[in-house]
Amino acid sequence: MATIIDGKKISKIIKNEVKSDVDKLIQAGIKPHLTVIFVGDNPASRIYVNMKEKACKKAGIFSETIQYDKSVSESVLLEKINKLNENNNIHGILVQLPLPSHINEAAVLETISTDKDVDGFHPTNLGRLVAGSENTFIPATPYGIVELLKRYKVETEGKHTVILGRSNIVGKPVGLLLLRKKCTGNATVTYCHSRTKNLASVTKEADILIAAMGKPEFIKKNMVKKGVVIIDVGINRVEDPSKKRGYRLVGDVDFDQVSKVASMITPVPGGVGPMTIAMLLKNTVYSAQKYSLKDGKQHG
Amino acid sequence: MATIIDGKKISKIIKNEVKSDVDKLIQAGIKPHLTVIFVGDNPASRIYVNMKEKACKKAGIFSETIQYDKSVSESVLLEKINKLNENNNIHGILVQLPLPSHINEAAVLETISTDKDVDGFHPTNLGRLVAGSENTFIPATPYGIVELLKRYKVETEGKHTVILGRSNIVGKPVGLLLLRKKCTGNATVTYCHSRTKNLASVTKEADILIAAMGKPEFIKKNMVKKGVVIIDVGINRVEDPSKKRGYRLVGDVDFDQVSKVASMITPVPGGVGPMTIAMLLKNTVYSAQKYSLKDGKQHG
Repeated sequence: MATIIDGKKISKIIKNEVKSDVDKLIQAGIKPHLTVIFVGDNPASRIYVNMKEKACKKAGIFSETIQYDKSVSESVLLEKINKLNENNNIHGILVQLPLPSHINEAAVLETISTDKDVDGFHPTNLGRLVAGSENTFIPATPYGIVELLKRYKVETEGKHTVILGRSNIVGKPVGLLLLRKKCTGNATVTYCHSRTKNLASVTKEADILIAAMGKPEFIKKNMVKKGVVIIDVGINRVEDPSKKRGYRLVGDVDFDQVSKVASMITPVPGGVGPMTIAMLLKNTVYSAQKYSLKDGKQHG
Repeated sequence: MATIIDGKKISKIIKNEVKSDVDKLIQAGIKPHLTVIFVGDNPASRIYVNMKEKACKKAGIFSETIQYDKSVSESVLLEKINKLNENNNIHGILVQLPLPSHINEAAVLETISTDKDVDGFHPTNLGRLVAGSENTFIPATPYGIVELLKRYKVETEGKHTVILGRSNIVGKPVGLLLLRKKCTGNATVTYCHSRTKNLASVTKEADILIAAMGKPEFIKKNMVKKGVVIIDVGINRVEDPSKKRGYRLVGDVDFDQVSKVASMITPVPGGVGPMTIAMLLKNTVYSAQKYSLKDGKQHG
């Protein structure tokens, strides 16, 4: 039976670390401040925004959510972001995705100051990730994955890591992180996706398998090799009449089967999920810390 | 015997296409203009800068090289780049790398306007590549590789492409291009490098093998599968007393051996090399075309 990679536990540890950093900043006269822009009324997004607010509050980070009707124009959003960029009290700006289709998502993300882009979705920050620069914000989910590997002392150097999914917010950046010439890097990285042929023959080669394709329980026991480390990013609802709410959450990996052959595995829920918000908090505090250094320089 | 992928021939075709685009721009009153900044006196860089100048001239692109002594300060360079950014007659700015060690290369590259960054090394443009945006400059060598695959009608969709080398200017961007959801994309992509274990077992899986590690004739026949398509980015000097100049150029692939089992292969020289300058010209003209559109809008 595989060791469970307990994202819930690790995320609590990180949140406590963040809280202690926040305390130091507050003592130095800086209150870390995250502003979330939320357009429309997507219920899943609403839940997620509420979770972020709650987690900020608990860590001592001031957070506010600016709510817009789904009919809001792009120019109103861009103008607001520019104002937030200029506000020295704000250290993190986050636009909850997805945005309504009449708004150019790329234009919105590119307007956020690269110094306040705590989601790490600004192309300049993504490009710094490609270039291996330290001066960047790492998107929260990939950051959380790498942090789990690190805290569970999973060796990545020279290991074949297979990533299922090529999204801009998980698949691509996590691969770039694992390619870096540093700790929790130096892996051999393979990207698979919907067009990959003979998928099982590739996944069987994986020492570490990161599943982020959004297909419930897709990865079966016969698709992995014995001893593989499994990171399951998928969060899928499947009908389950035995549950009060009528469904249960499962990952992209068939946990019951695969946990019997893997050496380590993240559960769903309680694996990668809780890490995402913890790393967002970490990015926000990192931004406030950088600001405090800048501020110190200006006055010193 | 493998089909030779003739980069020299294709680069000539592209240069002719560029020339015809330049002619149209000149008729519209716009002279495409590339400015190269060259610091120091590295002989290899000098040769390369001269080749760029010559190719520009032949295509009708105005090019100038601004030469600095290797002792130049970073602030002088940044100031110059800012002036070039503001000059509406200049469509492309390129800083010849490497720079002397006292200069922060990342700071220099980030100062170039993303609209004039014809080398595509600005993190914003690299990040747009990650995000799959069309509004970017693709670095010349990866762009040339993808163009060769396209013009030789090599199917990439679902094909396992193995990339040897994870540099910011070749390995990482070419993989990102091959992952895109469009023509000459949708490949399964594996990145290998110096820390990869059991390299031959990975390279043997490749339908397309892109070698960019700078190790002369490293890839042997027993490391590839029959029918593989080989793109050899390496340009290495090996001693050869039989040659007048005392050396010959070889790639990262043992051409004599591997060409017997591959279905297609690029030679060295005459493969990827000539494509790099052709794609730089293409990027410069693309920049001038975008400028002409912007200009048209401003006045129309």
